[in-house]
Amino acid sequence: MNMTTGGMITGALLIGSRDVMEGPEFRAVDPTRGTTIEPAFTEAGPADVAQAAALAAAAFPAYRATTPEQRAGFLEAIATEIEAIGDALIERAAQETGLPPARLTGERGRTTGQLRLFASWVRAGGADEPRLDSPLPERKPLPRSDLRLRHIGIGPVAVFGASNFPLAFSVAGGDTAAALAAGCPVVVKGHPAHPGTSELVGRAIRKAVADAGLPEGVFSLLSGTSHGLGGALVADPRIAAVGFTGSRAGGLALVNIANSRPVPIPVYAEMSSINPVFLLPAALAARAEALGTGFIGSLTMGAGQFCTNPGLVIAIEGEGLDRFLASAGAAVQAAQAATMLTPGIAGAYARGVTALAQTGATEIARGGAEAGPNACRPALFVTDAAAFLAEPALSHEVFGASSLVIRCRDEAEMVDVARAVEGQLTATLHLEAADHPLAAQLLPVLEEKAGRILANGWPTGVEVCHAMVHGGPFPATSDPRSTSVGTLAIRRFLRPVCYQDLPEALLPAAVKRGNPLHLPRLLDGKIVSTPEPEAVK
Amino acid sequence: MNMTTGGMITGALLIGSRDVMEGPEFRAVDPTRGTTIEPAFTEAGPADVAQAAALAAAAFPAYRATTPEQRAGFLEAIATEIEAIGDALIERAAQETGLPPARLTGERGRTTGQLRLFASWVRAGGADEPRLDSPLPERKPLPRSDLRLRHIGIGPVAVFGASNFPLAFSVAGGDTAAALAAGCPVVVKGHPAHPGTSELVGRAIRKAVADAGLPEGVFSLLSGTSHGLGGALVADPRIAAVGFTGSRAGGLALVNIANSRPVPIPVYAEMSSINPVFLLPAALAARAEALGTGFIGSLTMGAGQFCTNPGLVIAIEGEGLDRFLASAGAAVQAAQAATMLTPGIAGAYARGVTALAQTGATEIARGGAEAGPNACRPALFVTDAAAFLAEPALSHEVFGASSLVIRCRDEAEMVDVARAVEGQLTATLHLEAADHPLAAQLLPVLEEKAGRILANGWPTGVEVCHAMVHGGPFPATSDPRSTSVGTLAIRRFLRPVCYQDLPEALLPAAVKRGNPLHLPRLLDGKIVSTPEPEAVK
Repeated sequence: MNMTTGGMITGALLIGSRDVMEGPEFRAVDPTRGTTIEPAFTEAGPADVAQAAALAAAAFPAYRATTPEQRAGFLEAIATEIEAIGDALIERAAQETGLPPARLTGERGRTTGQLRLFASWVRAGGADEPRLDSPLPERKPLPRSDLRLRHIGIGPVAVFGASNFPLAFSVAGGDTAAALAAGCPVVVKGHPAHPGTSELVGRAIRKAVADAGLPEGVFSLLSGTSHGLGGALVADPRIAAVGFTGSRAGGLALVNIANSRPVPIPVYAEMSSINPVFLLPAALAARAEALGTGFIGSLTMGAGQFCTNPGLVIAIEGEGLDRFLASAGAAVQAAQAATMLTPGIAGAYARGVTALAQTGATEIARGGAEAGPNACRPALFVTDAAAFLAEPALSHEVFGASSLVIRCRDEAEMVDVARAVEGQLTATLHLEAADHPLAAQLLPVLEEKAGRILANGWPTGVEVCHAMVHGGPFPATSDPRSTSVGTLAIRRFLRPVCYQDLPEALLPAAVKRGNPLHLPRLLDGKIVSTPEPEAVK
Repeated sequence: MNMTTGGMITGALLIGSRDVMEGPEFRAVDPTRGTTIEPAFTEAGPADVAQAAALAAAAFPAYRATTPEQRAGFLEAIATEIEAIGDALIERAAQETGLPPARLTGERGRTTGQLRLFASWVRAGGADEPRLDSPLPERKPLPRSDLRLRHIGIGPVAVFGASNFPLAFSVAGGDTAAALAAGCPVVVKGHPAHPGTSELVGRAIRKAVADAGLPEGVFSLLSGTSHGLGGALVADPRIAAVGFTGSRAGGLALVNIANSRPVPIPVYAEMSSINPVFLLPAALAARAEALGTGFIGSLTMGAGQFCTNPGLVIAIEGEGLDRFLASAGAAVQAAQAATMLTPGIAGAYARGVTALAQTGATEIARGGAEAGPNACRPALFVTDAAAFLAEPALSHEVFGASSLVIRCRDEAEMVDVARAVEGQLTATLHLEAADHPLAAQLLPVLEEKAGRILANGWPTGVEVCHAMVHGGPFPATSDPRSTSVGTLAIRRFLRPVCYQDLPEALLPAAVKRGNPLHLPRLLDGKIVSTPEPEAVK
């Protein structure tokens, strides 16, 4: 047992209000040193999955019956409890991930800000999204009934913590915040690379559950290293939806399990994206050197371990591209090797870079020599558009600070490359006013390929707000209809229910006649936030 | 070739602007007489599927670039063209389906009204659903970009015509209207039971496409009798989503094909529902006889061929239930046999009724003797809750005018039955004020089971409006997050795209600074319909 300032790490599974410490053990690895870290963590087994799912199902009716204000207050309390852990959280996360404390402090702010944004969105009616149609008793040939719609939580949600954001896409990350905001209990399958961080955050959520007087099953945390654990969770009949961020193979495996259930369920898997960046001619002519250094800054940030890392750069050959490559190449050579999240990720990066070279891409530059057991050296490759279009392997994501520059002969070939890429989280245009005609050709293609289109920026920052889309067509995600970041993500975990002619006394508050929750509501096709007029007699 | 007043029936496939009449032939059947009807229709093959899908993909960029006003005008033009077919449409539909002309006239009004409602919804911003977050250039530690979100069509949509609504859930039915409203080209797989009706409506849509100057691939109609046709359409890589109404086996087959594609796509399959009706004690005491006759009116309407047909009635045993059964039984005996849509459906109904009897349900009453080759006799069965809970086969949908009454010992057993049913399109409560405590127990259970909950009505009317949900948990549908009726259905065929720092000149009109389309937009979390204020400097 290891007491820290703001939290406790025991190695237990958190199943509702109960600590479970029976089962095989595993330990986290300090990737910077290549050594294991105490304490031992409990590996969850099938019985633990079943118990957590049963508690979640038992908690669902009471939890989804909370008012928007109650649910918002609960989300805010989670944020406060996470802050209350203090430095212990940052220290443990840094030790388990090799990420610098400054980055983790920023990520903690993003995590708590995300919980508070969802709280405000729930208060603003973003979970209920009520819709009313006035009765028309005199209508011929048939009267219209009194019809009222609200959204309710879809049921208990399984959330898979991601390795690369140990706070913002993990135990209390975006999927957990969205699911809790939607009124769904959450069972987290914690990522085995940061089990101590997960337990600290899990205990913060558990305390908020208890303080709010909510049923214990609103939240459970299961840890473990086996693929079977995640599969068992997705297969459990009480789980109603799944949020996942990770590899393409991992995501597709969960999708297949979900589709094979007697009752299939939605899986929101964010999987694979190489985030093409198009350098248009006038922008390249105007600022090739600055683009080169900006690009490598985005590429190497966080050891390149972002889903939105710019893994593909497309430009037309010529003097501007040569200057860009010289600048980017120099920046790569000057870049330090950086510790990756896990030995597995570091190994996969090394293999991916080797495969790129073997597939015919030419190495332009590598970053500084390796500094530790799991450090990665940034890498920059180049190839021409014809080779890229002919070789699908050149499109494979290499998770880490590796990128491939595509030389195009002309604008038409640049558009061809845009058409050839798979679905992406982001697509970026660097442009000047003179580039607008070419950008106007690329935009409709990119809209069908990506969830977010940026101009004159780099894709590695993802704002948590109302207008964000962190999603996109397959294989970027398994479901292009949604986002995993921002308030629109709440729709992942909601379903609509219509009430026809229900007596006022039995109507849920969100759709009662007097609008007691003061929510914006769609009344006969128009948004109104005042109480609706009396029904037509 | 067969010229009629308002339209032409040639038997051709309508592939974009081209009539295709090469391939095997099939004919419609007049179910009332059991005879085939002229002319012969062309059976679509793999090459036809590929051509229709290729045209749809080619049309998608231009079609989704239409303004809300252009798309709304197009939807309204389709409605006008359908009306212009005149009586020929009703006559042909009546001949192909055995449904009475009055019902079909009403269904035509519903179909054109649905197109016009979607037109108004597109004008009101229901397709774009724009969201803006103001830039915060001075924010520390990092500025916030200018972020704008709109929704775009997901891509070409395959729509499967349903047998039981030859207009409202067929070629120009709800899925087609929602997909076109969302900016998606549509390839309809027409139901082989009403190919002439389908061709008439298909030609009306084609004329609206041409008159609006839209690319021909915005709409195609493929007909045929083979399961392979539908499978090939769902497997085509250019199809991005599927709308289906039909049997559970048919829906699940399409879901499996969609999930097995290299790029999986969403399938919205409406499949199977028995629509439980709960008769609460005080309501039963107050009006058992009226409930009995009202129930049988709903059960036998349209020969019971509604997805929302009340196939299960749950009540507590006693004098009230006895009166209800006497009343309902007499109404069934007095009911006429009615022609079903197809010989296949009539055969399946006969087998389903036989199976119910063999599974231990007791027949209370049958309707009048059969009147034609494909007529069905209404049937009413009763069993007790213990038997129902023990025998899953008693929950199987019998498509047609057959229903099963469940006798419960007490309120607790009634709640047990509610918990035991599968996902449903609807659940109905008949109640008085004295029943509210029991209703309050049932409601949370039913909300998790059904898309629509009615009080003191019958589920067989489905209003087309903003607050309707015609959907529900599996197996009622393959996706409980959506509805196939009402304006919320547009979300099936949309996906969000975010624009970050895009120059004004390149922004889509829905998210331009001046709000030139005058759409309601979510600005920093609040709905506004006026142009947004100038961005913070």
